[in-house]
Amino acid sequence: MSCITHGVLLAITLYDLVDKDGRRYSPYGWRVRMALAHKGLDAAVELCWHSDKEKLSFSGQHLVPVLRDDDHVVSDSWKIACYLDDAYPDRPLLMKDEQSRSFAKFINGWTDTIIGRPLVRSLYLDILRSLHPDADAVEFRKRREERNGATLETLFANRTKDFEELNRELAPLNQLLRDQPFVTGATPAYPDYIVFGTLQMPRHLNRVDPLAASQDAVIRWREAMRGLFDGLADRA
Amino acid sequence: MSCITHGVLLAITLYDLVDKDGRRYSPYGWRVRMALAHKGLDAAVELCWHSDKEKLSFSGQHLVPVLRDDDHVVSDSWKIACYLDDAYPDRPLLMKDEQSRSFAKFINGWTDTIIGRPLVRSLYLDILRSLHPDADAVEFRKRREERNGATLETLFANRTKDFEELNRELAPLNQLLRDQPFVTGATPAYPDYIVFGTLQMPRHLNRVDPLAASQDAVIRWREAMRGLFDGLADRA
Repeated sequence: MSCITHGVLLAITLYDLVDKDGRRYSPYGWRVRMALAHKGLDAAVELCWHSDKEKLSFSGQHLVPVLRDDDHVVSDSWKIACYLDDAYPDRPLLMKDEQSRSFAKFINGWTDTIIGRPLVRSLYLDILRSLHPDADAVEFRKRREERNGATLETLFANRTKDFEELNRELAPLNQLLRDQPFVTGATPAYPDYIVFGTLQMPRHLNRVDPLAASQDAVIRWREAMRGLFDGLADRA
Repeated sequence: MSCITHGVLLAITLYDLVDKDGRRYSPYGWRVRMALAHKGLDAAVELCWHSDKEKLSFSGQHLVPVLRDDDHVVSDSWKIACYLDDAYPDRPLLMKDEQSRSFAKFINGWTDTIIGRPLVRSLYLDILRSLHPDADAVEFRKRREERNGATLETLFANRTKDFEELNRELAPLNQLLRDQPFVTGATPAYPDYIVFGTLQMPRHLNRVDPLAASQDAVIRWREAMRGLFDGLADRA
């Protein structure tokens, strides 16, 4: 059995990634889980393996997360966040207006490219070990090694460079969070969940903290984020 | 005479930087000029040389821009933008609420560090040539060469690396601007003026465009920004 159904029958179902050891480390999955909690929406969860493409065929593509809300099927975490606000405008908004959505959209691209690149590279070997079946791991290794021009083991040996790059790029976020508790101000909103989702990866994959002590405000904010929604972030 | 007064007597005076050739390239000065135009506020302008510290002593520090509004003296472009919204809330807002101010604050830090660092480094020699008196240039060279561990001439010879870094870091902004005309959405606001102010530097200092063709959306946006307020950006 490749997918496990949790929870009772609900209108909303979230299809999220799980690895063979039961870990849920998808940054995009975490963004949606936090977004659902922000809006106070319950969802049944279907956990899918990395290669579980058939399970998602109903969505017309093969990547998690996918949200099914009665007849509505939405894939891609960004589109899911926009859908949740559009479909449930009376519940707390993830992005309350055009400027707020612009902010989130910028943070989304910045997190995926600038922040995510060095972080994910530092985690390649851990992701590799999490994959199943073995054919997935072979393909994963091949593509990453071609893209980076080095073996995953060499990249792993050089991961302090990835950590340095990550911490350098996080500087503007740390600067912002020295002045206010959350990315969006006094309370969290979707930009917070975006960055936090990506920073959940090492926590669930290898427990190595890539943040330098200089990221004092990001570290403090991350703790606050972990405490939201009754500690949702620590329930994997 | 080290400062030149423009315009008629007005309640607001902006102290901005000018070099010995009459060029106004301060990114922070441009942010404030665009911000004043956004709010529809006229201001007299006092242009100051780089070393014209005495002229600014009334502000308790020696850096431009400084805004004097009757009895109020505000230095630092960020504080000036906040002041303008707080003092003139009935005019178009630069940052209309807390989330909008968070967005601008993040963009401010990101632009100054991540975007500004490679861009300004690529312009060191041009800035050096613009300085007056010579003592300023000596001090400028000394400090930048110590910080970078290389002569300004070596840094200049390697400036394609700075351009590469700049274009890599601009990727999330380009991604955002492919979907919407301005950083903040359908119309510009302070985040637009922040980034634009910094991108004004090469335009006024050396006319070398550091943007790669891949920055298609940033380039298109920059053109639109130049057209705002009757082409204010081209009136230096």
